[in-house]
Amino acid sequence: MAFHGKKLINDPNDVVTEFIEGLVETYPGLQYLDGFPQVKVVLRADVSGGTYDKVAIISGGGSGHEPAHAGFVGDGMLTAAICGDVFASPQVDSILAGIRAVTGPSGCLLIVKNYTGDRLNFGLAAEQAKSEGYEVETVIVGDDCALPPPRGIAGRRGLAGTILVHKIAGAAAAAGLSLADVAAEARRASEMVGTMGVALSICTLPGRVTPDRLGPGKMELGLGIHGEPGAAVADLQPVDVIVSHVLKQILSPETNYVPITRGCRVVLMVNGLGATPGMELMIASGKAVPKLQLEHGLAVDRVYTGSFMTSLDMAGFSISVMKADQTILQRLDAATKAPYWPVGVDGNHPPAKIPVPLPPSHSMNSDEPLGRPAQLNEQGQILELAVEAAANAIKKLKDNLNEWDGKVGDGDCGSTMYIGATTVLEDMKNYPLNDATETVNEIGSSIRRAMGGTSGILYVIFCKAAYTRLKSSTQSVVTSKNWAEALEASIAAVSKYGGASAGYRTMLDALIPASTVLQERLKAGDDPVTAFLLSSEAALDGAESTKNMEAQAGRSSYISGDVLASVPDPGAMAAASWYRAAALAVKYKNQTPP
Amino acid sequence: MAFHGKKLINDPNDVVTEFIEGLVETYPGLQYLDGFPQVKVVLRADVSGGTYDKVAIISGGGSGHEPAHAGFVGDGMLTAAICGDVFASPQVDSILAGIRAVTGPSGCLLIVKNYTGDRLNFGLAAEQAKSEGYEVETVIVGDDCALPPPRGIAGRRGLAGTILVHKIAGAAAAAGLSLADVAAEARRASEMVGTMGVALSICTLPGRVTPDRLGPGKMELGLGIHGEPGAAVADLQPVDVIVSHVLKQILSPETNYVPITRGCRVVLMVNGLGATPGMELMIASGKAVPKLQLEHGLAVDRVYTGSFMTSLDMAGFSISVMKADQTILQRLDAATKAPYWPVGVDGNHPPAKIPVPLPPSHSMNSDEPLGRPAQLNEQGQILELAVEAAANAIKKLKDNLNEWDGKVGDGDCGSTMYIGATTVLEDMKNYPLNDATETVNEIGSSIRRAMGGTSGILYVIFCKAAYTRLKSSTQSVVTSKNWAEALEASIAAVSKYGGASAGYRTMLDALIPASTVLQERLKAGDDPVTAFLLSSEAALDGAESTKNMEAQAGRSSYISGDVLASVPDPGAMAAASWYRAAALAVKYKNQTPP
Repeated sequence: MAFHGKKLINDPNDVVTEFIEGLVETYPGLQYLDGFPQVKVVLRADVSGGTYDKVAIISGGGSGHEPAHAGFVGDGMLTAAICGDVFASPQVDSILAGIRAVTGPSGCLLIVKNYTGDRLNFGLAAEQAKSEGYEVETVIVGDDCALPPPRGIAGRRGLAGTILVHKIAGAAAAAGLSLADVAAEARRASEMVGTMGVALSICTLPGRVTPDRLGPGKMELGLGIHGEPGAAVADLQPVDVIVSHVLKQILSPETNYVPITRGCRVVLMVNGLGATPGMELMIASGKAVPKLQLEHGLAVDRVYTGSFMTSLDMAGFSISVMKADQTILQRLDAATKAPYWPVGVDGNHPPAKIPVPLPPSHSMNSDEPLGRPAQLNEQGQILELAVEAAANAIKKLKDNLNEWDGKVGDGDCGSTMYIGATTVLEDMKNYPLNDATETVNEIGSSIRRAMGGTSGILYVIFCKAAYTRLKSSTQSVVTSKNWAEALEASIAAVSKYGGASAGYRTMLDALIPASTVLQERLKAGDDPVTAFLLSSEAALDGAESTKNMEAQAGRSSYISGDVLASVPDPGAMAAASWYRAAALAVKYKNQTPP
Repeated sequence: MAFHGKKLINDPNDVVTEFIEGLVETYPGLQYLDGFPQVKVVLRADVSGGTYDKVAIISGGGSGHEPAHAGFVGDGMLTAAICGDVFASPQVDSILAGIRAVTGPSGCLLIVKNYTGDRLNFGLAAEQAKSEGYEVETVIVGDDCALPPPRGIAGRRGLAGTILVHKIAGAAAAAGLSLADVAAEARRASEMVGTMGVALSICTLPGRVTPDRLGPGKMELGLGIHGEPGAAVADLQPVDVIVSHVLKQILSPETNYVPITRGCRVVLMVNGLGATPGMELMIASGKAVPKLQLEHGLAVDRVYTGSFMTSLDMAGFSISVMKADQTILQRLDAATKAPYWPVGVDGNHPPAKIPVPLPPSHSMNSDEPLGRPAQLNEQGQILELAVEAAANAIKKLKDNLNEWDGKVGDGDCGSTMYIGATTVLEDMKNYPLNDATETVNEIGSSIRRAMGGTSGILYVIFCKAAYTRLKSSTQSVVTSKNWAEALEASIAAVSKYGGASAGYRTMLDALIPASTVLQERLKAGDDPVTAFLLSSEAALDGAESTKNMEAQAGRSSYISGDVLASVPDPGAMAAASWYRAAALAVKYKNQTPP
């Protein structure tokens, strides 16, 4: 199997120059040297070599590691970044141009990842620049901890730990230190950091087909950042296990790559390799910190999580651990304008978690404990009858609702509504029925506990909105005007959060006409019972009229007009039914002597 | 074909809580509510609901869109983020807990992406919170421009444009505006932004096998951020073409989704979907800006490039364009502590590119123009003979060098060196031979122009380092002591950048003994010619001794000891040969009357 290597690019030969153009469009603090395609140098827009009075910090190398290195150019970090082609060391002339562009009398420090090509090209550029009179120092970073100590020339590879060295050198330079002192801090930092990577996929180079040497379910340990094979291939493990393994290897007393022992303070960097989602990097960081603390006895002062030094579209991450002290922390915490250095990482950690706030005490506008009162007053009796009648109407309509819904939806409208109605009837014995406002709230809570689906949550919203309105407008007794206002508020909330309006073939097509008529009749001076009855007739008419409406949501919107015309919207019919039943119950109660 | 979906996770059910733990380990300004796994709320560590005197800005939704939304929590942006499970709307209780935790007397604004589940759950939480006495406003963002204007309830999806709305609302709240005013700004912002996405791959959910519905070489236009199919599948195009298409669709006068017409000012967001390398996003930004300017007649005030609202590990990007005015720019530019809001994006753009600096004028320590002098002085004559002899020695040794290299390396050492030697001989007619220092520099330049490979660049480094040392230490005539110092500096540079030391079976094994003997003999008072001759014998001995050395680099390090013992290192032999030839030439010249 070969990896697809689909890329959002134009000509594969132009990816680096086009990257730089986009970078500079995004960040006005950056510029580049007008020497494409040979010279690919990103530099601070506010630095000019002739006059720059601080040590210039220059890094770079092959491209494909974005945001490294160009994304770390900015006051307090790199002064210039020299970009090679993808995974290819930059040309000497490009490095020289970068040195000349930003180096002033204080000289420059070249920070070079330990790869032969980079060493030689940066080395030659450094020697050439020195021959031109520039003060140049070079620090080579080899932080890889994946392999046993190598013999000979190659040494350890430079990996993401280099970013920390950039930051420390950049902050030291910004603080006004001399070239020798900046180089000394950078060199020391490079000796304090160890890195190891894990890949879940290879990376694919622009314009090339890359064979997948990693099978499904495999990972590669100790990778390089250029797609070169890792030290070992293993079965993919939970990230917990991977993190433990990587930390042990970095901190191994056998290789003794970093001078970190129990009791040390450290900083941690979890670095994505290009195609690893931030979620996964954060999971790794969340696991690495307690492991460093508990398994290795280290204090973790800072955690940097993100994609800093990538390998094109490789999935995986590297972990870097650096021994920290006050100087290093001060340099890492110093402000920088480099766009990709993470912000908000410094400072002391408060407790990670705080308690979930308790809901406010249940009954805020009443001294009465909630629950069914010993004796129902007249309003309480009416309310009981109305709620009971409404719920029973829904129970009776269950099969019809399911049948209608079966033709236009998923066929469970009746069953869902039935559960809600049954629960309300069961819970009713505990409703504070003499307090209509709180009872409406309790009905909402019953529905919320029992009834699923969109209709369930819309009915809870309906009740909660009514409750809030009733609470804000009523005194001790809920008037018919209060009820009308509550209905209006409920409709508004259902419409707002549910997204439907009149004519959308929903419950609102019953409730909106009901609300309109209720307000009209009350305003016209009708007695409340009559107004309520007339309003409930409007609800029924409205629900029937949904037969002629197009569906606007859910499965109904795929159903043909003929089918739709044969059935009303079940949600609208349900709403009309309980509303009508409640109105009739109130009328009946009013006609019956107490 | 099913996507591998390899992930750096532990239990797929824990990805969100473990993400939050890692996030809070990384950013000390963030905390979370202690209600895992039901309540997953990230909030500002410096805000406590009871006392917070600004409008709280709350957003959230399903997880899998990291860094959205938790990564945008911080002063000046979100006050709290409510995290659902992956691609699942958060529970109402979780939203409520978030509201209660951060909302003070100034109230809170809920910013909700337009998905039914989010609308309903945030809606119910809002109504519940209102019933508890909180001031709550809700703004629903639907910025998707991929589909024609939809009928009915669903409306347009909320995509990455929501991040810009967060920023504007957060800055308005931080500026002390009232809830109504903050909500009005957020609502207005939501009407100014349009977004469209393009996917190159689907996303894979933790713990699931996901079929790849996108074939190789295909892309999906107008995707959602939950892996739902896009509006159309098309052949993958250059990103230039994709960007043009997407911008046209967002700015389409037919749909008229955003009120942007020619002459408007806009901001641009290019958002990665999780697995897209930063390089590709920058390429898209670099192309989008001139297209907006030239093809659409818009002024682009800000460019935000990065991964802000992702879809797990989906490859692809979305583009958002927002109409900008002074208020919106002010809000976008306002400082924030939200970790993932990009920094360094504001400010005026200087020219994108500046000229490549010219090298310093060629001859800095001489008024004489470079080039062969009309008359060679004695030193010039000696130098000419020495260089000529050295180059000819290399030419003669070509086949031997290739033969030795064929046994231990890639067999081209002789040919590579031959090219260098030939070029030096050709160029010599223009060397300023009366100025030995500048001649050394010119030899380096000849080699650099002609000779490839590691040996080429090492010889250039050799010459440049010698040149710098000679230039810094010589008066008019180069003394033998100067030459000895130059050789020492050259060796140091070659060792530093090449990584080799004595005994590594390289050219240094000829040059280091030569340098040692040269210095010894000069210090002992030998005449320079004799010292040089003895030194060249040490070089030959050193080169021969490489037969007994293990190889430390390159292909030689894989060759068995028996083979290695039969040949000397060709690089060492080459170095000894030219050095010896030069010494003999000097001696001959000295013995010959002028």
